[in-house]
Amino acid sequence: MSQAQGEFDLIRRIQAAARPGASRPGIVLGIGDDAALLQPPPGHLVVVTTDMLMDGRHFILAEHGAEAVGIKAMGVNLSDLAAMAALPWAAFASVALPRTSEVGDANAIAHGLLQGIRRVSEDHQMVLAGGDTNAWDGPLVVSITLLGLVEDDPPGAVFRSGARPGDTLAVTGPLGGSILGRHLRPQPRIAEARALRAHLKLHALIDLSDGLASDLRRLSEASNGWGIELDEWAIPIHDDAQRLAQMSGRSPLDHALNDGEDFELCLATPETLDPDRLANLPTHLIPIGRVVDRPGFFLRAANGMIRPLEPGGFDHLRDSTNS
Amino acid sequence: MSQAQGEFDLIRRIQAAARPGASRPGIVLGIGDDAALLQPPPGHLVVVTTDMLMDGRHFILAEHGAEAVGIKAMGVNLSDLAAMAALPWAAFASVALPRTSEVGDANAIAHGLLQGIRRVSEDHQMVLAGGDTNAWDGPLVVSITLLGLVEDDPPGAVFRSGARPGDTLAVTGPLGGSILGRHLRPQPRIAEARALRAHLKLHALIDLSDGLASDLRRLSEASNGWGIELDEWAIPIHDDAQRLAQMSGRSPLDHALNDGEDFELCLATPETLDPDRLANLPTHLIPIGRVVDRPGFFLRAANGMIRPLEPGGFDHLRDSTNS
Repeated sequence: MSQAQGEFDLIRRIQAAARPGASRPGIVLGIGDDAALLQPPPGHLVVVTTDMLMDGRHFILAEHGAEAVGIKAMGVNLSDLAAMAALPWAAFASVALPRTSEVGDANAIAHGLLQGIRRVSEDHQMVLAGGDTNAWDGPLVVSITLLGLVEDDPPGAVFRSGARPGDTLAVTGPLGGSILGRHLRPQPRIAEARALRAHLKLHALIDLSDGLASDLRRLSEASNGWGIELDEWAIPIHDDAQRLAQMSGRSPLDHALNDGEDFELCLATPETLDPDRLANLPTHLIPIGRVVDRPGFFLRAANGMIRPLEPGGFDHLRDSTNS
Repeated sequence: MSQAQGEFDLIRRIQAAARPGASRPGIVLGIGDDAALLQPPPGHLVVVTTDMLMDGRHFILAEHGAEAVGIKAMGVNLSDLAAMAALPWAAFASVALPRTSEVGDANAIAHGLLQGIRRVSEDHQMVLAGGDTNAWDGPLVVSITLLGLVEDDPPGAVFRSGARPGDTLAVTGPLGGSILGRHLRPQPRIAEARALRAHLKLHALIDLSDGLASDLRRLSEASNGWGIELDEWAIPIHDDAQRLAQMSGRSPLDHALNDGEDFELCLATPETLDPDRLANLPTHLIPIGRVVDRPGFFLRAANGMIRPLEPGGFDHLRDSTNS
């Protein structure tokens, strides 16, 4: 089979795979032309996010396999849509496929990737609407661009820039240690973001991809530079962070603050999140601190002592920046 | 300067660079949040295309430099928008930057890339609205996703699927030999596509990225499998194809038919393209053949003899497939 033949086969396979997921409205033309053509439903804006994953940095192809890479690549992008409270709409996947690898040739890798991408697309009623397939002698690179939809009317999209002093900060789940395996299976908080937006006044929303401390710095920077004060005892620590701490010599709290790829959401709300209010929300939410009117990042201990929170290290696997 | 610091600097530079080009309407939120937010102007559909370029396959970083890579990466994507007769709107750029290279470190490469991307964005009144910046030990990879706009009403977008027997095929410029350097400076035929759409009834439109013979096969496949007959003497051969033929031992015609990355447009029209009609079009157009009602690809010689056109080789640099 010639290379050209193989590539045409791949396109056909992608086209066939893309169809079953075509349950979102407005996909006028998907895969197969020079570009896709989309018509946003009336009253909606388009949300666009893109994330690139590379072998050895965000995954290890030989260890994790191609399907896991497809699942992760979609998941990290979906997490960015969740951070805007958007609904997934259409996916575009560009790949640089190694001609040979421990897990097979370019076609085998493409097949596995496609399985992973398709599975996540179906879970989120997305359409795989286009892409670009390349083979080379380098490592696997997967670049996903997702389009989402969000209502034009309030509450609309939620930005990271609206946090104000007095806001309570809260997260959707326990943090840290995702490198032990969880980072491969992101659970993008799409439904949670939609539910929270409907039931809670949100000033700001961000997904935790680079670690709570780093991502809160971005939220602060986008929100007029207001400071952040976290309650040390309130930060939910994932079991993985506990396990990892036993190996790393770092504290579980350090892992929860500084590990990346949790893919939980962090929000700022002007509402008071007392136990009653929390119990009546449709989504699990853990208050962790507040926005304060002095600049800086602070950690408040159970005894009331407040100390500055130093910037932590990046996750050793992850070293990228979304913009 | 720590790595994290360098990356934040890069984001700021991208944000600053993105602003001057912000002349298209509907960019509600660009770089700086988890995702961009776009509002298509009333009466418009969204066109989406994505293309990934890799060092050693689509460019040679050490030879061409980072700015040229940025220009080419934008150009090949713009060519796909032209092929839909769409107007450029917003760009998203994801990059895997080598930490070290002959042309400098990751920051230097990012700076050069950004110069190239910005230059093309300004030429086409586009907004750089988002992206993802990563550093690694592998070669440079650049993945661009472009969003374009096209009117909802006819004539709207032009697909590659509408060619019918009797249609005349025509191209916007001479073909072949782009590897001698032209492939680095694509002149995406955005304005030409818009002008042709306004002045000519178009059944199909495609951009020539993989070579006339390959791309016409795609047009045929998308257009009910109708055959293609090209007039050998009418195919415009670029000077570069003539020059390259002297080195390659292949014929200039072979180069014009089978070299990739011309980034001219090829259209199918039911109109008769006689010299008068051509002279009155606002855009240079060269008739090269016709769509026929028998399957296959044929080359007609000046003496009237018709022979099958065998699939040619792919450009030795390019080996990718858009979908």
